[in-house]
Order: sequence, then structure tokens, then C-alpha cells
Amino acid sequence: MPILPLPIQNLIEALERLPGIGPKSASRLAFFLLRAPDELLHQLSGALTDLKTTTGSCSLCYNITVAGQDLCEICSNPKRADGTICVVEEPLDVLALERTGGFNGRYHVLQGVLSPIEGVSPDDLKIRPLIERVRSGEAKEIILATNPSMEGDATALYLRQQLLPLGVRITRLARGLPVGGDLEYADQNTLLRALAGRQEMQ
Amino acid sequence: MPILPLPIQNLIEALERLPGIGPKSASRLAFFLLRAPDELLHQLSGALTDLKTTTGSCSLCYNITVAGQDLCEICSNPKRADGTICVVEEPLDVLALERTGGFNGRYHVLQGVLSPIEGVSPDDLKIRPLIERVRSGEAKEIILATNPSMEGDATALYLRQQLLPLGVRITRLARGLPVGGDLEYADQNTLLRALAGRQEMQ
Repeated sequence: MPILPLPIQNLIEALERLPGIGPKSASRLAFFLLRAPDELLHQLSGALTDLKTTTGSCSLCYNITVAGQDLCEICSNPKRADGTICVVEEPLDVLALERTGGFNGRYHVLQGVLSPIEGVSPDDLKIRPLIERVRSGEAKEIILATNPSMEGDATALYLRQQLLPLGVRITRLARGLPVGGDLEYADQNTLLRALAGRQEMQ
Repeated sequence: MPILPLPIQNLIEALERLPGIGPKSASRLAFFLLRAPDELLHQLSGALTDLKTTTGSCSLCYNITVAGQDLCEICSNPKRADGTICVVEEPLDVLALERTGGFNGRYHVLQGVLSPIEGVSPDDLKIRPLIERVRSGEAKEIILATNPSMEGDATALYLRQQLLPLGVRITRLARGLPVGGDLEYADQNTLLRALAGRQEMQ
């Protein structure tokens, strides 16, 4: 088997390290880039080089922000409703919730999820700053919006234990059938949750 | 909806331009890179910057090669059998065939496929150099290994017309059921080809 030219092998190896990109996709991408306009390669490599130096973390909610800016867009926005903090795992979750337009409060990004298997303990997450925010009286309700996964549920449970003594209202996003979904294809757990969480028709 | 910090937006936009990467994958990748070790970002951006300056095209078969090297690994290998040229669309196809270990001849990379819809005409492909190679008496057999798609078939047909007057043997890769495949799930065309191409059991 002939060895691929080293520059291409390097690129394939780097691409393979990205999540969701296997050896086949990596080589397809690399060969695409080989024929792509120079401008795209510059755009990509520039964006990669700048990424870490030009971004930072919001000192209040730990969402991403532009470097040098202390507070993120949401924390510094006076039009956002105070009193409710929505706790999510990742900045991407903030984006997903913002896209719905259904929440106008504040956020808190944990920057991960509890996972004993991967060695992620409460101290590795931004849990202590959250407790301090709640203790300072910033919020009356905490919406736990971690993922509906095993780790997300465990993290929500842990947060509930920590926040309960502070006398704040603690809620969790509803479970049930996804909109547009098909009852026939829903898994057992989702269906059980949808049954348990059934509501009066109005 | 809050605007994402510009550096991340730039990266997402650049990633979205890659094939097979939609807006969702692009933002997932961008946020992964945000937390990835610096070393991975450097590896990626370095590989991208070097890609075009450090690679070239083989002057004989148009496979990729290291910049400054006239012939590719295969063309410059005296152990490869002369007399058979396998014509493929892309360098990736060379890689796929080499992995099988079933071909020990030479290659010719067309660098594309005829496509009237996308405006790719014979002059845009490396067809003329192929005809010259055949005319020089380099090969007795030309294996047309373009993809079994409409464009690939049309390209093979065109090449056959061009090469036939040169008195060379012209073959095409066999069509039929993929190994490990399931007759039940094979599409009609594949099954028809498998029937038409049936062979004596030995």
C-alpha cells in the first residue's frame, strides 16, 4: 500500500480526532480540502488559530464570550428577566434554548456533567458558583435543564440536593413524546414518562 | 437570540462549507474545538496551511504527490507491473484499490467525472494525457474503474470510444451483489447486473 503524502496524512490524522469524524470521513474531507479554494483553507485555519485567544468565559454564568468581555451577551442584557436561572450543561444548550424564544431569564453553564466513569466530580463543574448565585438571592426559580440522559439526571439530582436547603423553587424540563414524533416508535421510557406526566386537556 | 462570539461564528461558517457537515455538526465541532487541547488546534490549522504548498500532482498519472516530486509513489515504483492502467476518478479511489492489494499495475487519475449538469467536459479531466499514455504503447489493458454511477458510466463510455481506435483491451470493473450483502435488500439494477454477469461455478 502506498504511503499518502505526509501533509495529507497529517490532515487526516488531525481530522480523525474530531468527534463524529471517522477515518473514512476524515480522508474524504482531506481530499475535498485538497481541491477546495485557498480562501476556504485560510478561513478555516485562521478561525482555528484565533479560536482560543479571542474567546473567554462569562464570569457570572460561564457561557462563552468574546475575550476581554467580563459578562456574556445574556448576563449583560438588562432586558432579560431576573429571578430565574436555567442550568445547562454546555454553551450549545444555551443556544438551543435561545432559538426557541421561550425563555427570557438567565443561564448558568455547568461546563459538563457529573460522570464518575470519566472522573468528572462536582468540583470539576461550575456548581459552586451556581450555589453562590442562588445564595446571593439572585433567583427564585432554578430550572434544571441538563440532558435527559443518565448523567444529566444524576447531575440534576445532585444539584437538587445542594439547592434544596436554600429555599428556592427547583424545576426540571418536561419529559414526554417529542413534537412530531410517533407513538409507535417512542421507546418504553419516554412513553412511561409521557404517561406519568399526562396533563388535563384544556 | 444572542449573537455567538464572532470567532466561533467564523469557525462554524468555515466548517459548514465542508461536505457532509451541516449547521448542527458545524456548531458541535466548533464547541468541541473550544474545549480541545491547544495542540489539536495547532495540528489542524498547521495541516490546513501546509496542505496546498506541500502537495502536488504526479506528472504521469495525476495522483497526489509530495510537492517537488515529479512522479508519485506508484509511478516511480519499478516493482509495479507495466502494461495495465487502471483509470479512476479521484486519488481516494487509488487508495481504495491499493487497500485491496489486488492490483499491481499503474493508475491514471481523471481528477473528476464527466457531468454536463455541473459543466464538466472532457477537457476538464485528464483524458488527453491518458490517451497519450495509451498511444505511447505504455499499456495493453485499460481498466475503467470509474464509479458505478450515471456520471461514472457515461465517462467510461466516452473513454471507451476514445480508446477503442488505439487497439487496446478495455475492461470495466464487475457489477453484482456486494460481498456480505443481502439479495433481499439489493436494488433492482444491481440484481439485474448480477444476473446478467453470472458466471460458471468452478
